[in-house]
Amino acid sequence: MIIAVIGNSTAKPEHIKLAEEVGRELAKRSIIVVCGGLSGVMEAVCRGAKSEGGMTIGILPGHSPEDANSFVDIPIVTTMGYSRNVIVVNTGEAVISVGGAFGTLSEIAHALSEEIPVIGLKTWPLTVRGDGDPIHPGIVEAETALDAVEKAILAAQRRSK
Amino acid sequence: MIIAVIGNSTAKPEHIKLAEEVGRELAKRSIIVVCGGLSGVMEAVCRGAKSEGGMTIGILPGHSPEDANSFVDIPIVTTMGYSRNVIVVNTGEAVISVGGAFGTLSEIAHALSEEIPVIGLKTWPLTVRGDGDPIHPGIVEAETALDAVEKAILAAQRRSK
Amino acid sequence: MIIAVIGNSTAKPEHIKLAEEVGRELAKRSIIVVCGGLSGVMEAVCRGAKSEGGMTIGILPGHSPEDANSFVDIPIVTTMGYSRNVIVVNTGEAVISVGGAFGTLSEIAHALSEEIPVIGLKTWPLTVRGDGDPIHPGIVEAETALDAVEKAILAAQRRSK
Amino acid sequence: MIIAVIGNSTAKPEHIKLAEEVGRELAKRSIIVVCGGLSGVMEAVCRGAKSEGGMTIGILPGHSPEDANSFVDIPIVTTMGYSRNVIVVNTGEAVISVGGAFGTLSEIAHALSEEIPVIGLKTWPLTVRGDGDPIHPGIVEAETALDAVEKAILAAQRRSK
Repeated sequence: MIIAVIGNSTAKPEHIKLAEEVGRELAKRSIIVVCGGLSGVMEAVCRGAKSEGGMTIGILPGHSPEDANSFVDIPIVTTMGYSRNVIVVNTGEAVISVGGAFGTLSEIAHALSEEIPVIGLKTWPLTVRGDGDPIHPGIVEAETALDAVEKAILAAQRRSK
Repeated sequence: MIIAVIGNSTAKPEHIKLAEEVGRELAKRSIIVVCGGLSGVMEAVCRGAKSEGGMTIGILPGHSPEDANSFVDIPIVTTMGYSRNVIVVNTGEAVISVGGAFGTLSEIAHALSEEIPVIGLKTWPLTVRGDGDPIHPGIVEAETALDAVEKAILAAQRRSK
Repeated sequence: MIIAVIGNSTAKPEHIKLAEEVGRELAKRSIIVVCGGLSGVMEAVCRGAKSEGGMTIGILPGHSPEDANSFVDIPIVTTMGYSRNVIVVNTGEAVISVGGAFGTLSEIAHALSEEIPVIGLKTWPLTVRGDGDPIHPGIVEAETALDAVEKAILAAQRRSK
Repeated sequence: MIIAVIGNSTAKPEHIKLAEEVGRELAKRSIIVVCGGLSGVMEAVCRGAKSEGGMTIGILPGHSPEDANSFVDIPIVTTMGYSRNVIVVNTGEAVISVGGAFGTLSEIAHALSEEIPVIGLKTWPLTVRGDGDPIHPGIVEAETALDAVEKAILAAQRRSK
């Protein structure tokens, strides 16, 4: 199983800590982490995963594998800039969002528009919906890193049925 | 000047009417409309623009120019699926969002993350911000189609300085 | 009708001259030119088209409409780097290739793989084929700019039937 | 080290056999294979790699990880169609091309335009060059799968210096 973890490249200490825990909990369950491969939340989730012997994929915006943080096992070099965000969320069987600014919101919204489940940890409050589309569900909120990982696994399993 | 107009492909009558007015007001000012080229809000803004002799560009997700609604003058055939959303908002010097579901939210958030100004008409309430990024401004709300067009022009002019 | 014109950004004078003539001949027939929007062959074809009052589209790799050469009417800002090449050839109903290095060869090959007709002016000799695929036709060679434009129009008309 | 292997989805038995050997030789050296993730040469190289316990990445054009052949360990879901070709060659530190039609030629040319080394096995004869660009080297030809793998490793090592 592959789970996407998204969040800001310049994140608060609280979000860094949560992301690292998410990485550890995913790796303990042999779940592969996919993320944007850069700093902040992306680096923290990779560091957590590697501390438990997990595997990490970084979907990079630029031209060089050396842009990846040092905890990325597999750097995917897209050369496509932020269009690579679409690849991050589609490669995950579910998405965990930790904190995040507008770039992260863009990924959340893209995931929800494609009906990819999103679990939120201190992230955008997307339980209130916009106007045009009353059908799709929003973010499933989680309280802790462990809770987020368990909810993401459940959502991914439901989806693959 | 090119202004991007975004919104849902299956839009409410209220949003269709607003989008058509936005298209007319843009065309009256010789502003080119860029949009996703399909139905709903995208078709309405193109129809409005053509009714005033304007020019319209459709950034299409698929492989055929015939996917464009019949009011698109210039179909851009990306073959990239929803990754084309990034092109729509970057091609506009400002963005007007009319209604919209998650796909539209994804475009709004992408625009704001790149500091492209977004004017909102009955769209997502992005004045309340997420957690990770206290700097960038959110959506500028507009009351009417005319108000949205005037605010978009002003924002585009400020940006190009 | 929209015709794509491709070629190198640092082109020989011979290719610049041919591209400019191609632009003029397309514009005389009210055909819109789409290209990569930068310098060399791309600038020459746009300059030629504008000298006859034509319309030009530049599919830009970067983040700014100001990257476009000064003869581009409609800058499409993809932010996707060279992945934008796919959009150039798919937006044309046929492709005219003038000279060109490996980037141009990549566009020619992509066009042929999608069965988009390619007319060649002093370009890669793709009448000899590779090994894996004996079915698709290769480049149609042209002798002059006028010949290339006439062959491109014919190919585009055949394709749309 | 990650090496990209490219080739047609409907390949000749001769190319299938070569690709499978390439996969085995890469895996014996603990080199990760990246490819387009589908059938033909892509499936053969993954099958070869897995028979020696290697790791395989498939950069998929569509929306589902289930599009991957059954020997892909890590399906990357791009949703971008053939624009994903750019990601395949940029993710490899060198590229091995086995046979191939126009799609493969497009990848070869893109790689060469970005100065990514390409090793050829019964592939397009790109030692003869086009007109516009006398600087970049073309394909390095190999005689056998083993020869191709050794030349790709050498080229990747030179490049990273």
